[in-house]
Amino acid sequence: MQKKGNKYGVHRVIEPRGLMTQAARKIDNTMEICSNEILCDVTALNIDSASFTQIYGACKKDLDQTAQAILDIVQERGKMQNPVTGSGGMFIGTVAQIGDDLKGRIDLKEGDKIASLVSLSLTPLKISKIKAIHPEIDRVEVEAQAILFESGLYAKLPDDMSEELALAALDVAGAPAQTARLVQAGNSVLILGGAGKGGMLCCCEAMKRVGPAGRVVALVICQEDAELLKSMHLCHEAIVASATEPMDVLDKALAANGGKEYDLSVCIVNVESCEMASILPVRDGGTVYFFSMATNFAKAALGAEGVGKDITMIIGNGYTKGHAEITLSELRENRQLREYFQKKYI
Amino acid sequence: MQKKGNKYGVHRVIEPRGLMTQAARKIDNTMEICSNEILCDVTALNIDSASFTQIYGACKKDLDQTAQAILDIVQERGKMQNPVTGSGGMFIGTVAQIGDDLKGRIDLKEGDKIASLVSLSLTPLKISKIKAIHPEIDRVEVEAQAILFESGLYAKLPDDMSEELALAALDVAGAPAQTARLVQAGNSVLILGGAGKGGMLCCCEAMKRVGPAGRVVALVICQEDAELLKSMHLCHEAIVASATEPMDVLDKALAANGGKEYDLSVCIVNVESCEMASILPVRDGGTVYFFSMATNFAKAALGAEGVGKDITMIIGNGYTKGHAEITLSELRENRQLREYFQKKYI
Repeated sequence: MQKKGNKYGVHRVIEPRGLMTQAARKIDNTMEICSNEILCDVTALNIDSASFTQIYGACKKDLDQTAQAILDIVQERGKMQNPVTGSGGMFIGTVAQIGDDLKGRIDLKEGDKIASLVSLSLTPLKISKIKAIHPEIDRVEVEAQAILFESGLYAKLPDDMSEELALAALDVAGAPAQTARLVQAGNSVLILGGAGKGGMLCCCEAMKRVGPAGRVVALVICQEDAELLKSMHLCHEAIVASATEPMDVLDKALAANGGKEYDLSVCIVNVESCEMASILPVRDGGTVYFFSMATNFAKAALGAEGVGKDITMIIGNGYTKGHAEITLSELRENRQLREYFQKKYI
Repeated sequence: MQKKGNKYGVHRVIEPRGLMTQAARKIDNTMEICSNEILCDVTALNIDSASFTQIYGACKKDLDQTAQAILDIVQERGKMQNPVTGSGGMFIGTVAQIGDDLKGRIDLKEGDKIASLVSLSLTPLKISKIKAIHPEIDRVEVEAQAILFESGLYAKLPDDMSEELALAALDVAGAPAQTARLVQAGNSVLILGGAGKGGMLCCCEAMKRVGPAGRVVALVICQEDAELLKSMHLCHEAIVASATEPMDVLDKALAANGGKEYDLSVCIVNVESCEMASILPVRDGGTVYFFSMATNFAKAALGAEGVGKDITMIIGNGYTKGHAEITLSELRENRQLREYFQKKYI
């Protein structure tokens, strides 16, 4: 009979004890599952971009050395977590075995093709062979196995789009799903970084939800992006500004909304010091949703106090219930967006 | 006739232009007000603890040198913002003049005694004389003037308690006010860092709001604190653990709540790496409120995703409408808490 493991996988932490699997230096990658784990045959790793760039650079862009470096990390740590960047990535594979306690209780069956939506930095992994490395897309083809914990997230890969397209969208799945939850009919919404991958999906979701009485304004970095977003009907108005210049953003954002402050702003610009530009345009009682990993907690907290803004500031959570389905639906519903993603991100 | 300034004070930024007053190196401290500014006669500065400690140390604990260092900073920058720590503090004073556009529209009149609730790091200040320095409480008695912008926050100092007591509580006013807003009747609430100044006020507010069907559990660092909180009826149960050890916290927190996950956790522990201990005990759909400035944005965002928690994570905002009044009320309503603050923080 299979033993039951901790739902977060803590039973696999080797050292230091007491930490979670992501914070641990080394985890147990024995490919024998507990009753609440899922064993997967892995065909490819999508290494996190920061991690791949670091390893590939340190190996002087030599593919054999890069392969060996990846094998060494996994051998040493039991997971593909870059010791310099701390980051991981995701895997693609098929379900090989579902633990007894999960069988019938989850929407997976053996043989299903899935992408993991939790980081490789916390996922037990064992690589038997690296078959190819595609440095232009940070992708490593492997023969490997991995374990998903009971709390682990995954998405079944859809039949109606290519694996690459699905992965490009799933990469930023949390943002549109949380935007969908925050936007209400009639809202005015400012999306900082509207022309990026996640930004476009957020714009799309906001446009769907504000309805005829609402307004979606996207902040972008150049006129081309502004015209692109408008031509794709992803916003009512686009403004061109740098999100690091709060007063300029405030002026342009208010002008684009009839002088009124916004109900919600979404910051999905991956550069530092965009906190004030996200806070200033929002009305008292409104919400700022920070999805960018470059967000500084203290700058946001002290910044809102400094300008006397009584707003709710939310930390973007990579996971929201149904986030994979919501994100893939965007691409199914919006042919223009799908074609753009196909062209730009694959 | 008075000119109207920018509501956030941006008209006073000297360099670099385009930034807000907090981020600016130098601001204009001319003591002549715009129509939407307030001029105050300042009697004392409560320097931020990190800032005072740095200056006092650099001056080898010499009071004259410390005084000169403070004068130099304000002379140079137009505001009391420590160039090393970046932080400020608050001032105490009386209202000297209210701009024409604000008169009658705010709850202040000339002569009112107030404490500023926005940071000195963004407040125009001119010191004519330093009268005394009290290093044990980071306090500097001065003859000075300061300006509050239209967006500036302040609290009228109450008649029914000492200035020192009011200031000790106002220092952490954002936390209990936001806790009050987040807690609903019947909720189970976990407060990490319940025995600190802000933590006790949050506990008090949570106890008031959960009602007979709710439950408040405080996490503290030692048994003495646990007994103190229980004896003061600031929680239903207190658990002793380190908030940097998530699995230990999870086990004890669940045990203290009949095995059930919490609706809300409040993290008000001022040490690093308390994100996972705040996230794990909360149910799907629940809320984590991070008030600690030691919170790391990325650790929270990636941490919740890593364990598949669909929760709302909120960045503590130093300002919430009515936060000063809510916090002072705590001390008025709870005699035991007031006596404890009187003894411990003055």
